[in-house]
Amino acid sequence: MAAAMVGNKLVEVGTKIIAVGRNYAAHAKELGNAVPKEPVLFLKPTSSYVREGGAIEIPPPLQSVHHEVELAVVIGTKGRDISEESALDHVEGYALAIDVTARDLQSAAKAAGLPWTVSKGYDTFTPISDFIPKKQMPALGDLELWLKVDGELRQKGSSKDMIFSIPFLISHISSVMTLFEGDVILTGTPSGVGPVTAGQKITAGITGLIDMTFPVVNRQKTKA
Amino acid sequence: MAAAMVGNKLVEVGTKIIAVGRNYAAHAKELGNAVPKEPVLFLKPTSSYVREGGAIEIPPPLQSVHHEVELAVVIGTKGRDISEESALDHVEGYALAIDVTARDLQSAAKAAGLPWTVSKGYDTFTPISDFIPKKQMPALGDLELWLKVDGELRQKGSSKDMIFSIPFLISHISSVMTLFEGDVILTGTPSGVGPVTAGQKITAGITGLIDMTFPVVNRQKTKA
Ligand SMILES: [Mg+2]
Ligand SMILES: [Mg+2]
Ligand SMILES: [Mg+2]
Repeated sequence: MAAAMVGNKLVEVGTKIIAVGRNYAAHAKELGNAVPKEPVLFLKPTSSYVREGGAIEIPPPLQSVHHEVELAVVIGTKGRDISEESALDHVEGYALAIDVTARDLQSAAKAAGLPWTVSKGYDTFTPISDFIPKKQMPALGDLELWLKVDGELRQKGSSKDMIFSIPFLISHISSVMTLFEGDVILTGTPSGVGPVTAGQKITAGITGLIDMTFPVVNRQKTKA
Repeated sequence: MAAAMVGNKLVEVGTKIIAVGRNYAAHAKELGNAVPKEPVLFLKPTSSYVREGGAIEIPPPLQSVHHEVELAVVIGTKGRDISEESALDHVEGYALAIDVTARDLQSAAKAAGLPWTVSKGYDTFTPISDFIPKKQMPALGDLELWLKVDGELRQKGSSKDMIFSIPFLISHISSVMTLFEGDVILTGTPSGVGPVTAGQKITAGITGLIDMTFPVVNRQKTKA
């Protein structure tokens, strides 16, 4: 029932994207980070969504714009202080997303103790697939996520390697901030992140379930 | 015209709160930070809004929850790459807000190079006043903001001391992320930030224009 309410409209009706950093040990390690004791959370603006048919835009001065393929959890029922036991009742479905990250900006921000917001927040920095209703989803425990750049495999990992489970994340996040219908949780990326440049094409998928394609272009300034 | 469309509904229709850190030199200094060369931006979730009649809730384990009184700019017309010259055409009005901050968590996050999100993002961490239509607003250049705790003056400052002007902020932010109708920009706090505890009462205002009152309470876990 809730599924009919949000679905692909999450891009319009959602009010937040809560992203989890370092939720796969191998990815934490590849960036030289410790495995966290509690989830590392940050927000991406919903203005960063782009659906298939659109492109990932690289803001002109930026180098080192990285792909991070992630499983997205779509909230269907508002909640605060959600228990782990009831967490999946608040989920309407899933999607595949890419947490596009300006790694140079993020590294500079980390070194300076500054927010990650800009490095994660540009328009088109959250490509997202079609909505997958919960009923169509196989068991969450062993989903294979993959990402290719120009056909070359860059990331492949399994949701079984998540440090914090989806029910735990929902419970934890909702103890800080109320989750609204249409909100999305990005559950972290497996190892293999790396740069993309204009002219390349990203394909990504959940094996046996969904795939998506996004071209990468240089951003043109809009006239305003 | 836009004014009739958002107004106090910004709390429901807005999809993001973009907050500016260290936009008053005296406040940057009091926390031991350098005056920034470009705006420090972070996001707060719209789930953190609370209107008058509600209370600021201190999550039980947190000490050192600080008040930061700020002028809020309410976007009325969507825009990307907005020029400084046309920036105020995108503004529908203003409000007064408090950027409530768990300073201990923020300090730990800064030291570890982690996002500020949780320290800024708890429910009730963005108390906001009634909407002030643009037409009722005096000149932006010299608005006096003040904040008292239990009647004692803690913060008083003028918008004339902002490092980055409102048109500049709108232009800059919209070069990163599209601003939507109902989005809010928190423009930074003057000096005098400090802790509040349960049982205290915060009053804050823009001299001659608006004031608001929020009690501070300890947060009770909701049953879920
Ligand atoms: Mg942040
Ligand atoms: Mg990520
Ligand atoms: Mg502030």
